[in-house]
Amino acid sequence: MPAGYAEAMSQARLTGFSPPTHDDVAAAERLVRPLAIETPVLRNDALDELAGAFVFLKPECLQVTGSFKIRGATNRLVRMNSDERRRGVVAFSSGNHAQGVARAARVLGMPALIVMPLDAPEVKIDGVKADGAEIRLYDRMTESRETIAGEITRERGAVLVPSYDDRHVIAGQGTAGLEFARAMAADTPLDHFICCAGGGGLMAGCALAFEGASPSTRLWTAEPEGFDDHRRSLEAGDIRTIDPAARSICDAILTPQPGDLTFAINRIRLSGGFAVTDDEVREAMRFAFRHLKLVVEPGGAVALAAAMFRLPAYMRGQRVGVMLSGGNVDPALFADIIRQA
Amino acid sequence: MPAGYAEAMSQARLTGFSPPTHDDVAAAERLVRPLAIETPVLRNDALDELAGAFVFLKPECLQVTGSFKIRGATNRLVRMNSDERRRGVVAFSSGNHAQGVARAARVLGMPALIVMPLDAPEVKIDGVKADGAEIRLYDRMTESRETIAGEITRERGAVLVPSYDDRHVIAGQGTAGLEFARAMAADTPLDHFICCAGGGGLMAGCALAFEGASPSTRLWTAEPEGFDDHRRSLEAGDIRTIDPAARSICDAILTPQPGDLTFAINRIRLSGGFAVTDDEVREAMRFAFRHLKLVVEPGGAVALAAAMFRLPAYMRGQRVGVMLSGGNVDPALFADIIRQA
Repeated sequence: MPAGYAEAMSQARLTGFSPPTHDDVAAAERLVRPLAIETPVLRNDALDELAGAFVFLKPECLQVTGSFKIRGATNRLVRMNSDERRRGVVAFSSGNHAQGVARAARVLGMPALIVMPLDAPEVKIDGVKADGAEIRLYDRMTESRETIAGEITRERGAVLVPSYDDRHVIAGQGTAGLEFARAMAADTPLDHFICCAGGGGLMAGCALAFEGASPSTRLWTAEPEGFDDHRRSLEAGDIRTIDPAARSICDAILTPQPGDLTFAINRIRLSGGFAVTDDEVREAMRFAFRHLKLVVEPGGAVALAAAMFRLPAYMRGQRVGVMLSGGNVDPALFADIIRQA
Repeated sequence: MPAGYAEAMSQARLTGFSPPTHDDVAAAERLVRPLAIETPVLRNDALDELAGAFVFLKPECLQVTGSFKIRGATNRLVRMNSDERRRGVVAFSSGNHAQGVARAARVLGMPALIVMPLDAPEVKIDGVKADGAEIRLYDRMTESRETIAGEITRERGAVLVPSYDDRHVIAGQGTAGLEFARAMAADTPLDHFICCAGGGGLMAGCALAFEGASPSTRLWTAEPEGFDDHRRSLEAGDIRTIDPAARSICDAILTPQPGDLTFAINRIRLSGGFAVTDDEVREAMRFAFRHLKLVVEPGGAVALAAAMFRLPAYMRGQRVGVMLSGGNVDPALFADIIRQA
């Protein structure tokens, strides 16, 4: 691990690297609310028919910055003191965390620099620019984002904001799960909750949220085939990595392995994981366009694809919650996908 | 006017052709709720910047059947007696009212036949089929939908469900406005509310809703240029018709003139109307895709286009409510529009 990065991570560890609890998620809600909206819970008859279950959707694509990431970023940034705020934040991300950090930094009046891959979706790069953050593009093949971020962090005395392995980030993401569990409380609790997993921060935060607010709900990850490191790690009981040759259109969630902190939470709270093909993801995106009138990005559609195509027989007729985690997709890709029959 | 249609309309008149009030809208809410969801109110920073105002969005594209029309259809159909329910309903519509009636009829267990133009968007025809309604397609150039609907209504003894000029339909649509006004009540009332107008039923229902729930809010229609019959009728103080040569991509709201009943309501409650170009509508649809992650159909985007491009200087910095009335758009058209820069 490059020196600059290790240093930055040790700083992050000091402030944030201990496991959060349900109470941390509950406490995060008040802090997150000024920047993040409470997204609704949606239902669709055609989806129920297709899934053979009662499906409830949490559309975080409607969230500020187009994904749930504003929640965790806000919960991390509001905890910085005035000296840290002056020096600002650094993050690396293919785009959704980038936009969450850039927005939170802008609103809170801090400088932000985001390290993004050259091939990040244009819509995500533009989103970061619109919030006035500096961008340092890098080549995935020849450069290390950790080295770049570490060097910049050290030079500026800035705070590195991890995209998932941080207690405040995890607790912040969990507020989406808390809203979901609470919205269902008036009705009957969910039997199952399916959530995408890249590093596993959203899943971990939601697991903590459900633990306190809907303890009977069983929890499942959804990932692209080839990037189903959570599914395999949950089965094995410890961390498994992906085959580096794996490819998928789900840019937002292509992490090589579960996070240490997120997996410590997820390992003992989750029932397992689903893996879906890119074709199933495309089909889910078309369904969302056609029936839900929602723009969902590939990585944001994996849990929907799992509900549409992969529910085991015993879940039939049960109440299944699905996270639609983001909607930041380039128009050309989206147009190609919805044109296919 | 063809004989069959006149007869059907006189039947509709007997049951529904007297002006509803705010109380009718309030009473409709309980009846509409089992079939229609309460849609959220959304905000977007980039939109505020573009509009130069604080814009609040009511996304009825997220509504069951993809538009607000389920509200009015439900409020009309639940009032039918068992004999009428057995004989069923007939409607004519380019698609959104068709889907609302088909869905309400299916849930309430009535037969439904919908008269639709051959060139209706495929997504709308498919939506009606999926709800098990019979479809009678007609050629806009050579056939009269009123004659066809009138004949079928007479033959079957069915009830014709008008798409706007009916007190129960208007009151039902108004529930969207009631939700909007109530959601704002916790905050500050809207200064302005902009709503698309085809026949003017949604606008009229919302006008009644705001009259009781947010009386300080000023009300405005939005229409495509060339189909700005409401704008011109409001200016003139009585009904004006469109030039039959007018063309627009906004299929859902291309009515030749305001309805008699809807205009009786709108004439004395509205401040005026906006007209927007098809290019501004496309731009609004791209904005909704890009920033709101919502699929909005052309007719559903006119009020957004008005807020983005047509607000007069005195509305700057004020609180403007915008109705996004529907999202039923064919994928090929949507793909073409979002691909344009």
